[in-house]
Amino acid sequence: MKSINELIKEINELKSELHEKDFLLTWEQSPEELERVLKTAQVLKAMRQENIATNVFNNGLGISLFRDNSTRTRFSYASAINMLGLAQQDLDEGKSQIAHGETVRETANMISFCADAIGIRDDMYLGAGNAYMREVGAALDEGVKEGVLPSRPALINLQCDIDHPTQSMADLAWLEEHFGDLNQLKGKKLAMTWAYSPSYGKPLSVPQGIIGLMTRFGMDVTLAHPEGYDLIPEVVEQARQNAEASGGSFTQVTSMEEAFDGADIVYPKSWAPYQVMERRTELLRAQDHDGLKALEQECLAQNANFKDWHCTEEMMTKTKGGEALYMHCLPADITGVSCKEGEVEEAVFEKYRIATYKEASWKPYIIASMIMNRKYQEPGLVLQQLLDEYKTRVK
Amino acid sequence: MKSINELIKEINELKSELHEKDFLLTWEQSPEELERVLKTAQVLKAMRQENIATNVFNNGLGISLFRDNSTRTRFSYASAINMLGLAQQDLDEGKSQIAHGETVRETANMISFCADAIGIRDDMYLGAGNAYMREVGAALDEGVKEGVLPSRPALINLQCDIDHPTQSMADLAWLEEHFGDLNQLKGKKLAMTWAYSPSYGKPLSVPQGIIGLMTRFGMDVTLAHPEGYDLIPEVVEQARQNAEASGGSFTQVTSMEEAFDGADIVYPKSWAPYQVMERRTELLRAQDHDGLKALEQECLAQNANFKDWHCTEEMMTKTKGGEALYMHCLPADITGVSCKEGEVEEAVFEKYRIATYKEASWKPYIIASMIMNRKYQEPGLVLQQLLDEYKTRVK
Amino acid sequence: MKSINELIKEINELKSELHEKDFLLTWEQSPEELERVLKTAQVLKAMRQENIATNVFNNGLGISLFRDNSTRTRFSYASAINMLGLAQQDLDEGKSQIAHGETVRETANMISFCADAIGIRDDMYLGAGNAYMREVGAALDEGVKEGVLPSRPALINLQCDIDHPTQSMADLAWLEEHFGDLNQLKGKKLAMTWAYSPSYGKPLSVPQGIIGLMTRFGMDVTLAHPEGYDLIPEVVEQARQNAEASGGSFTQVTSMEEAFDGADIVYPKSWAPYQVMERRTELLRAQDHDGLKALEQECLAQNANFKDWHCTEEMMTKTKGGEALYMHCLPADITGVSCKEGEVEEAVFEKYRIATYKEASWKPYIIASMIMNRKYQEPGLVLQQLLDEYKTRVK
Repeated sequence: MKSINELIKEINELKSELHEKDFLLTWEQSPEELERVLKTAQVLKAMRQENIATNVFNNGLGISLFRDNSTRTRFSYASAINMLGLAQQDLDEGKSQIAHGETVRETANMISFCADAIGIRDDMYLGAGNAYMREVGAALDEGVKEGVLPSRPALINLQCDIDHPTQSMADLAWLEEHFGDLNQLKGKKLAMTWAYSPSYGKPLSVPQGIIGLMTRFGMDVTLAHPEGYDLIPEVVEQARQNAEASGGSFTQVTSMEEAFDGADIVYPKSWAPYQVMERRTELLRAQDHDGLKALEQECLAQNANFKDWHCTEEMMTKTKGGEALYMHCLPADITGVSCKEGEVEEAVFEKYRIATYKEASWKPYIIASMIMNRKYQEPGLVLQQLLDEYKTRVK
Repeated sequence: MKSINELIKEINELKSELHEKDFLLTWEQSPEELERVLKTAQVLKAMRQENIATNVFNNGLGISLFRDNSTRTRFSYASAINMLGLAQQDLDEGKSQIAHGETVRETANMISFCADAIGIRDDMYLGAGNAYMREVGAALDEGVKEGVLPSRPALINLQCDIDHPTQSMADLAWLEEHFGDLNQLKGKKLAMTWAYSPSYGKPLSVPQGIIGLMTRFGMDVTLAHPEGYDLIPEVVEQARQNAEASGGSFTQVTSMEEAFDGADIVYPKSWAPYQVMERRTELLRAQDHDGLKALEQECLAQNANFKDWHCTEEMMTKTKGGEALYMHCLPADITGVSCKEGEVEEAVFEKYRIATYKEASWKPYIIASMIMNRKYQEPGLVLQQLLDEYKTRVK
Repeated sequence: MKSINELIKEINELKSELHEKDFLLTWEQSPEELERVLKTAQVLKAMRQENIATNVFNNGLGISLFRDNSTRTRFSYASAINMLGLAQQDLDEGKSQIAHGETVRETANMISFCADAIGIRDDMYLGAGNAYMREVGAALDEGVKEGVLPSRPALINLQCDIDHPTQSMADLAWLEEHFGDLNQLKGKKLAMTWAYSPSYGKPLSVPQGIIGLMTRFGMDVTLAHPEGYDLIPEVVEQARQNAEASGGSFTQVTSMEEAFDGADIVYPKSWAPYQVMERRTELLRAQDHDGLKALEQECLAQNANFKDWHCTEEMMTKTKGGEALYMHCLPADITGVSCKEGEVEEAVFEKYRIATYKEASWKPYIIASMIMNRKYQEPGLVLQQLLDEYKTRVK
């Protein structure tokens, strides 16, 4: 593994415009920018291991806005801003005056007078979450330009309707740790496949984030799902273009077996078809509770036709040497543990359980890295300063 | 604009007893005390601009108790305590044991063993909010005297039934910024006027806070509202006395046009008549939901007679040169934006939108200043120390 | 009173394995370990009095999980982690994805990547709270062993079904302060007695914690309650064994008068019989709301037979010189103040009110001490370092 010094040197050599733009979709960032986020995260994680304090702020707020439930991402965001020296302030829309009809641009400024980061999860409404983040970002830009805000807070996409960049980047960091190097990923087959779950309405952002990111590094990415369980077409097209540009490949199949065949990495996970998410968005907007209930019933019945999309030990034997790396964003629907019939067999999950925890452990560092790369033109110099000061994290 | 050094020098020359009393009503403070709060806030804001850390606490809690919804004040308070180095701890009465019938003096002590500041919003019940704060203050005094508490937390009025001092002081700081100097405010006409809104039950604390504070500095303050939309008589009387003492004037009229005529500053904002707030307080206490609904209907119908109390472009032409400064505590009820018919026309609000954001941006610094002036007899010396240390806020 | 230097010297001389185990029940700790927690708390409290910063962490999270309402403990925990330099992050199970059927061991790891402390209150279900904490602890151990977690968070029992160690240890610290020395407690009679309250379902953890801890120091502990208001038999047996080992005594009586007779210290407090808590646990698990209501009615009626279990001025005359120290974990049910008829007469409570506040004031320092004793093999050396650095808490 590379030393902190080597990583900082590499960071300093990577070109990046991340200090001038928000990280809202991975495919809007250049490969060098993605690498810089990965390496900055690696340094932050290594520094914690070596008990070096990573506080770059003496004060400042890290604001969070969760429009959907969250444990992992909530704690990862809290961890990220804490390791940088920021304090968390949650914007609870239920306790605020926002229902008054206040505009997004006003709220964005009102919460940001002393903010250095704003993390938003908004994944319920197709077509809305990512657009909302851009509206917030534009309002923050105006606030800085007009002298309302003393500095531009970093805007972090903690999951939207299109992408889940903190998840996919953490997954990529884990793959890099597991396989030793980004270059080792070239030619590796990753199967991003739908799996059965007894729930419905799971967001599309994880599978979309995975195919949108992993196709950037020369991997052979296969997307598998039953017919009708489509992702947003534009994202699928993006993945196709990514693969072409990176020298990898992007394949779509309609069988889990085919996807698993010879795979180095498998990512079996349930999601709702994007056409369903569109109908659901309309029903949510109309507050049509009966319609939502009917849609849920319809979808659960439909899902039940595909219970054989199940990551079993037998299914795993089809992968490269029967030993593909199993990945999941967690929590997984584990058959016989968290549900009667789910995405993955207990024996498979148990074999890779610690691996999935390590996968998850990257998220705090990825978020902190995204904040640093937005706030500093040269985060490597700041990391070097932390290293030189060598202040201990814990006495 | 004055330098940080000049401001600190001026702070050191101002007499103040603020370190021995809570800042619960602006009219309980001397002009020198008000000035010192303003100047301390200016230093804190300038230090953030210059990236100087303003942490005066290495640890300590800043407690918040919100008995009404809030975004702006909640974030301002969070920002204030964060810039001083305190951590926020919210007292959520729903999640506490307070419903057990615990006394105020007990709760006040129980939450304060490690607290340096307590901010309270309590504006729902006429006659209760400010009184509650004083009860808390007395309990804290007893706790310190009896050796229960190691130090006296600063008590901050984040809006009560009578005053909204963090708002009015932020408004004053903005006027000082806008007009260049407190002395420039002498003889300026400020129109605090009622405006139509499709809601009811808006607190009286903002108009009361404005007439109670702005009459201290030689301004010509005009209060305008339809007949029957009275503020608390004692506060109106206070404003009258303030004006007399400061060499300004205080006038009451029953027409928006008359108030706007020749005004340098206009503050059009809706509120409920204090007589209605009294009836509402009784109904809230009795948990008379039908009564509350009936009162709301009655008031909305009454309000609807005064839709012409509307801050339009035409109305603005009556002001000095047609260019009076428009102010609002936000969020404003903007016609065609946040409601069908409201307090202000979209074109007027849009012209002054950035100005209202700047007005709001003072609140974190005013609150931090109030805490510093309560905790330190000589905050100027502490600010000087921060300046000498010149620790950066962001690396 | 001992100086900070003397206390640190004594801490360094006490043997302890607390850095290798969680503090979940006081009777699992050796007398030396308990003393070290007391002395560390004393140093932390004295340092705050002398304005010495006690931050041992430059960053890190202190996680809280409250499965029951709390004010005192919530604020004490917040104060404790804040004085050590950690930031609080609450795990609100309602806002999380835990309902998905996620396992305890997974959640424990997911929230702990950057956590240094986890405080849990779980006292509703008999047989479950303490067991849950041990499950979390085992998961954290595995996480560290497998390289998922960079360090082992301190697990703090903020009240379970069996013990309330932060309360009983704070009570002990108060007794030490009040009587001057732990040795002074030898031979002192403490009456832990049931008292009437118009509520039901109060946890057993306080009386159990008191008899489980105070029997360790040679005190004569008398437990009194009406027939049928039993504590968990295993804990009563533990108290009996403790008393034998420490050279004190443990007596059970069924009359408040007898318990108060000649007592140096009285602790009158209501609780529900453990048999009732067992039935309640089953009904809660079955979500049997009618059953719960019926049980409540039955118990309230039963309680009403024992209204004479009331800490009156007359009852207090039976104690040593009529001047026993009254203790309570707060809030007390005060007759005529917080309820019509309760645990204690207003005159008695008022006489000892400030004393109970001082009792409560120890909790933040006890919790911080428990965290330090879990994180450091030699907390005395770290305290010495803080003392040598002499960084001020407040400028």
